[in-house]
Amino acid sequence: MRVFNFNGGPAVLPQPVLEQVAAEMLDWQGTGMSILENSHRSKEVAAMATETQELLRSLLGLGQEWAVLFCQGGASLQFAMLPLNFAPDRAVCDYINTGLWATKAFQEAKICGASPHLAASSQDDDFTHIPSEFSFSDKPRYVYLCSNNTVRGTRWPSFPADAPATLVGDFSSEFLSRPLDLRNFSLVFAGAQKNVAPAGLTIVLIRREFAETAAKGVPHMLDYRTYLENDSMYNTPPVFAIYVAGLVFRWLRDQVGGLAGMEALNRAKADRLYGFIDGSGGFYRGTARADSRSPMNVTYRLASEALEKPFLEGARGEGLVGLGGHRSVGGVRASLYNALGLEAVEALVGYMGHFMAKNG
Amino acid sequence: MRVFNFNGGPAVLPQPVLEQVAAEMLDWQGTGMSILENSHRSKEVAAMATETQELLRSLLGLGQEWAVLFCQGGASLQFAMLPLNFAPDRAVCDYINTGLWATKAFQEAKICGASPHLAASSQDDDFTHIPSEFSFSDKPRYVYLCSNNTVRGTRWPSFPADAPATLVGDFSSEFLSRPLDLRNFSLVFAGAQKNVAPAGLTIVLIRREFAETAAKGVPHMLDYRTYLENDSMYNTPPVFAIYVAGLVFRWLRDQVGGLAGMEALNRAKADRLYGFIDGSGGFYRGTARADSRSPMNVTYRLASEALEKPFLEGARGEGLVGLGGHRSVGGVRASLYNALGLEAVEALVGYMGHFMAKNG
Repeated sequence: MRVFNFNGGPAVLPQPVLEQVAAEMLDWQGTGMSILENSHRSKEVAAMATETQELLRSLLGLGQEWAVLFCQGGASLQFAMLPLNFAPDRAVCDYINTGLWATKAFQEAKICGASPHLAASSQDDDFTHIPSEFSFSDKPRYVYLCSNNTVRGTRWPSFPADAPATLVGDFSSEFLSRPLDLRNFSLVFAGAQKNVAPAGLTIVLIRREFAETAAKGVPHMLDYRTYLENDSMYNTPPVFAIYVAGLVFRWLRDQVGGLAGMEALNRAKADRLYGFIDGSGGFYRGTARADSRSPMNVTYRLASEALEKPFLEGARGEGLVGLGGHRSVGGVRASLYNALGLEAVEALVGYMGHFMAKNG
Repeated sequence: MRVFNFNGGPAVLPQPVLEQVAAEMLDWQGTGMSILENSHRSKEVAAMATETQELLRSLLGLGQEWAVLFCQGGASLQFAMLPLNFAPDRAVCDYINTGLWATKAFQEAKICGASPHLAASSQDDDFTHIPSEFSFSDKPRYVYLCSNNTVRGTRWPSFPADAPATLVGDFSSEFLSRPLDLRNFSLVFAGAQKNVAPAGLTIVLIRREFAETAAKGVPHMLDYRTYLENDSMYNTPPVFAIYVAGLVFRWLRDQVGGLAGMEALNRAKADRLYGFIDGSGGFYRGTARADSRSPMNVTYRLASEALEKPFLEGARGEGLVGLGGHRSVGGVRASLYNALGLEAVEALVGYMGHFMAKNG
């Protein structure tokens, strides 16, 4: 029996995608081989990878000035690749610190020989809001942000419009949850294991002209140009995750109505849960400031901390899993990623009502 | 219908493993979730990853002085990580150049700020043999070799016993094809996409005391200690590929008789094919020198180059796929990885006999 999966990532994937993966595991596209066994140099895999890039481009409405790269190593490797390529030799780059992952990106920039400058931070507020005032440096190479904080449940309501340099950022935990306006961005990346595919693939969108400004002499696997010039096949890419990503992109296009349809569904899910929390008379308390709430990761606490363990255990008993807060903060976190249906949120809200009636 | 898959990598996997992957794709271990959807922090995935490490340790007979790491980025990222960690600040390290991939490793060491020294090379001989004489430098940090050349079909008959430093190396295309004597090694790595799992996972075996000698200040995702100290879960690892690796390790233990059994089967396959080539009166010609022949990748040419295209097309028609030589050298390459059965080699030899009778 399938459960309702509120995992923060790796996370729920669309069931029709999983069914297709299972059905063609021994013979993919009539090749007589599994997708796991096909050469990345075969015409079938090459066509699949290209189609996956084009599906993504079409979902996001990206022109040919953007390249779609398939990398590995997750956001954590991007934290290093960014400064190595775009802020070498102590170059100044601005970071906006909205949580754990932005902090890591900032620290990694130091290790990689850049001079990162903290343009804003909500750390004093336990990262429960997104800053709206910034002290940018004079001429940074880029301005870095993390669009959605998975741990604290915040998301940028709108991106800075007056930054002194191009924006770059980590979109891992809200990628493809809504249409994206990338006008002020030159590079965004997303670990696939939230809304896209299994872990082991990082999608990077990069403006071709930005890529041309990258430093020389960076190790091949850390150099964005290596991926650009070899269409992400300098060496063997993570073929299986790319294939699943393509199936998910097609599901988004054909079953969900693209990113506008996805946004509407995600909004409905988030409104239902936040609405219930706000109407609970304080029994449940959202932890993010109202103007910074993430529709992807809904973080909340119960009337008392002692209730949280029985709450989570009871939820598991009802087939509602993955609701524990990030191990660094505790509490409850309901991740409402794309493939989680509204019925899962209804089930959660129903459980929360019963639990409150018994313990309120 | 399944074909006989002679791909150089990604490559054939054991059919029972693929069947199990398909069968539990929607509900893994009764979690009500796919293995693609389970959190890497769940107790089930943590136990699976640990069991996978222990299965590998047991197959190879490794003690606790060795750590098993799960990395990403393939051998190509290891080419950078090795010198960044173990030959920083222009430190001297020796490389033995036996082909395309060893050449790349040598060049990457330069990019990464090491001073690599070429201790031997068979480049003048088109990499058709493994060198047996070396001009090592005085006190290198390590001596690097690639144990099996996938492109040219050579394998080390035995490893240097008198090297002036610890050996490190790339075992990608023969990993787990035979028992390994790692006495003189401190680090070996293998891209999983040959004998282990789908692409997107790199297995690294490292002696714990060697890891302690690594440079400080290396970016987190390039620092072996990051993997060691976080049991390969500093960030989200490629869970699916680790899971498949575990199934393959169990298949090796339970169905094949461990690495000794595997070596016997691989020897039988290679002997059958090399025997047929050598007995063909020159119609088929092995390209590797006899003492350096790889049992994993059998490279050969036909009596005339013009016959090679019809040979490969006819083979495909018979369900014998992936026989084209590496795109850099052409000719024929039959990769006989672990999961390829003897019946596939018999089918190939049968086809080669017919083709010779018609064209000889």
